[in-house]
Amino acid sequence: VRELVPGATRVALVTDARVGALYGEPARRALRRAGLAVTVLRVPRGERAKQSAELAKLWRALAAAGIGRHDVVVALGGGAVGDLAGFAAATWLRGVAWIGVPSTLLAQVDSSVGGKTAIDLPAGKNLVGSFHQPRGVLVDPALLDTLPARQLRAGLAEIVKVGMATDASLFRWLERESGRLAASEGAALELAVRKAIRAKARVVTRDEREREGGARTALNFGHTLGHAIEAALGFRGPLHGEAVAIGMRAAARISVAAAGLPLGSCARLDALLDELGLPRRLPRVPLARLVVMLARDKKRDASNVRWVLTPEIGRASVPRSISSRLMRAALLEAGARA
Amino acid sequence: VRELVPGATRVALVTDARVGALYGEPARRALRRAGLAVTVLRVPRGERAKQSAELAKLWRALAAAGIGRHDVVVALGGGAVGDLAGFAAATWLRGVAWIGVPSTLLAQVDSSVGGKTAIDLPAGKNLVGSFHQPRGVLVDPALLDTLPARQLRAGLAEIVKVGMATDASLFRWLERESGRLAASEGAALELAVRKAIRAKARVVTRDEREREGGARTALNFGHTLGHAIEAALGFRGPLHGEAVAIGMRAAARISVAAAGLPLGSCARLDALLDELGLPRRLPRVPLARLVVMLARDKKRDASNVRWVLTPEIGRASVPRSISSRLMRAALLEAGARA
Repeated sequence: VRELVPGATRVALVTDARVGALYGEPARRALRRAGLAVTVLRVPRGERAKQSAELAKLWRALAAAGIGRHDVVVALGGGAVGDLAGFAAATWLRGVAWIGVPSTLLAQVDSSVGGKTAIDLPAGKNLVGSFHQPRGVLVDPALLDTLPARQLRAGLAEIVKVGMATDASLFRWLERESGRLAASEGAALELAVRKAIRAKARVVTRDEREREGGARTALNFGHTLGHAIEAALGFRGPLHGEAVAIGMRAAARISVAAAGLPLGSCARLDALLDELGLPRRLPRVPLARLVVMLARDKKRDASNVRWVLTPEIGRASVPRSISSRLMRAALLEAGARA
Repeated sequence: VRELVPGATRVALVTDARVGALYGEPARRALRRAGLAVTVLRVPRGERAKQSAELAKLWRALAAAGIGRHDVVVALGGGAVGDLAGFAAATWLRGVAWIGVPSTLLAQVDSSVGGKTAIDLPAGKNLVGSFHQPRGVLVDPALLDTLPARQLRAGLAEIVKVGMATDASLFRWLERESGRLAASEGAALELAVRKAIRAKARVVTRDEREREGGARTALNFGHTLGHAIEAALGFRGPLHGEAVAIGMRAAARISVAAAGLPLGSCARLDALLDELGLPRRLPRVPLARLVVMLARDKKRDASNVRWVLTPEIGRASVPRSISSRLMRAALLEAGARA
């Protein structure tokens, strides 16, 4: 922290109950030793942290902690903690520095590169936010040791996405290593994170602000439906990575029908996700509710939902709308109730 | 709007009850004629709009109105409406376009140039916000016709500030025209707004993000104490411009003692503010409470409050801390209760 934010005298260490109990004290001691005044701020676990009421609480806590323009917010936790704390940092005093210490596989890959911060609204996920690059991100594989196996698997979905949408060689590597990854072998996980971060950074540097049709839209592969699933279930259903896995399978099916993805490539994606223990089908959600949530997704333009499709493994096309017949078929195949 | 935001199909027209009743319908019809779908969103009058609960309501309303990435937020009202609506636009879908239509003299000068957006917290003013330039600002002198005289006078304080801190020739012009300005003569007001915007834009373009010690800090002249007065009275005391007038008088006294401002220049500032009908003394506020609020002001560094001082009319120095003895004396002279 001292090196990344030389002028800081105070730190707001934002974390949740689980991660805070495991790593909060060591982190606090390390920051103290660096000569910083530390205030630990607890937020709810998981997506519940990303509510506007929690954001308002966090702002008030930053005021009480006396966090000034040159001070720093440290986000120690999963993706939700990073999204919330990063957005609070983006808006506190019109922007202070923040540092990410992601504690889940998903967050190490997904939120550590890109500078997207956000909270949710009842109407949908990540509707409110900022682009605010962290001053630094500390990716520590040891933090994954205490992560439940289901969380690890969900994080692997995000790595599969990076491969499928942007990097065919990463995808092939995942296919070769899927056994070790499914068994949560530390060395394989660490390498997977490193490869995914590198591939993602390549995409993000080409398109920092996510322009319309820019390179970065590829990273939304599987997320159109994934977000809709999460929102339709009030963020109490599958984990983000699990929802994205279902979303990728559906998007691949649509890609076969509408973007020329070979059926064999679609089958390879399915097989890889199966191998990694990621779900095939939705929990029971009414089709109509999913369609409403899709329309609300922030990526839509006017009244059209735009899908990121993959003409081949490792490459995404510019997002585009598809026929409602095709969309309904894909949703039904994913397990939506008619 | 069509020219400034060509891709927009929907507009969220944010306004308050007073301005909305006077100008909401004509504005809505004009936008409709331009082929845009308009949703009018009402917010509370004045500073009460700038609360985190109002921001959360506005976000939900933007979701309900279906405002997409290419759509636009129009802020029709005083400075508070612009600050809130601009911040909502800065954070909605990580940033959509906004257009300001300031309806008070103060907002025409103060919020129309600079791109600062913000809300308040109980701990202080403008603690949370973004830099988010409006796509355009429509300054219409006709909107001032219905403005109460007290509001006009308060707006003139902001123009005096620009002259005192950055432009001696503007200050001298204000001295010459003070009679016509105090009488709310339309032509004089319009010219004053134009001159102040031009002077302010010169400063802002040199320092868009308000760097430490950058040119833009000059524009905080009078605001250190002004904000503290407003916060100490829970934003239910003097108007912003009135608080800034008191803040400028105190800062000028401190400048005489600590920055070499000639006593005669301090007297000229006092005379000009008197002539414009701006207050000399605080409503009764305990000194201790003001000091607490000063320490919380976001411009502070570590535990030092930094004051923008003026060594001469038309020029501000880099903000710096002053002795607590000097600060107490200035606050007591401004009318604080010991």
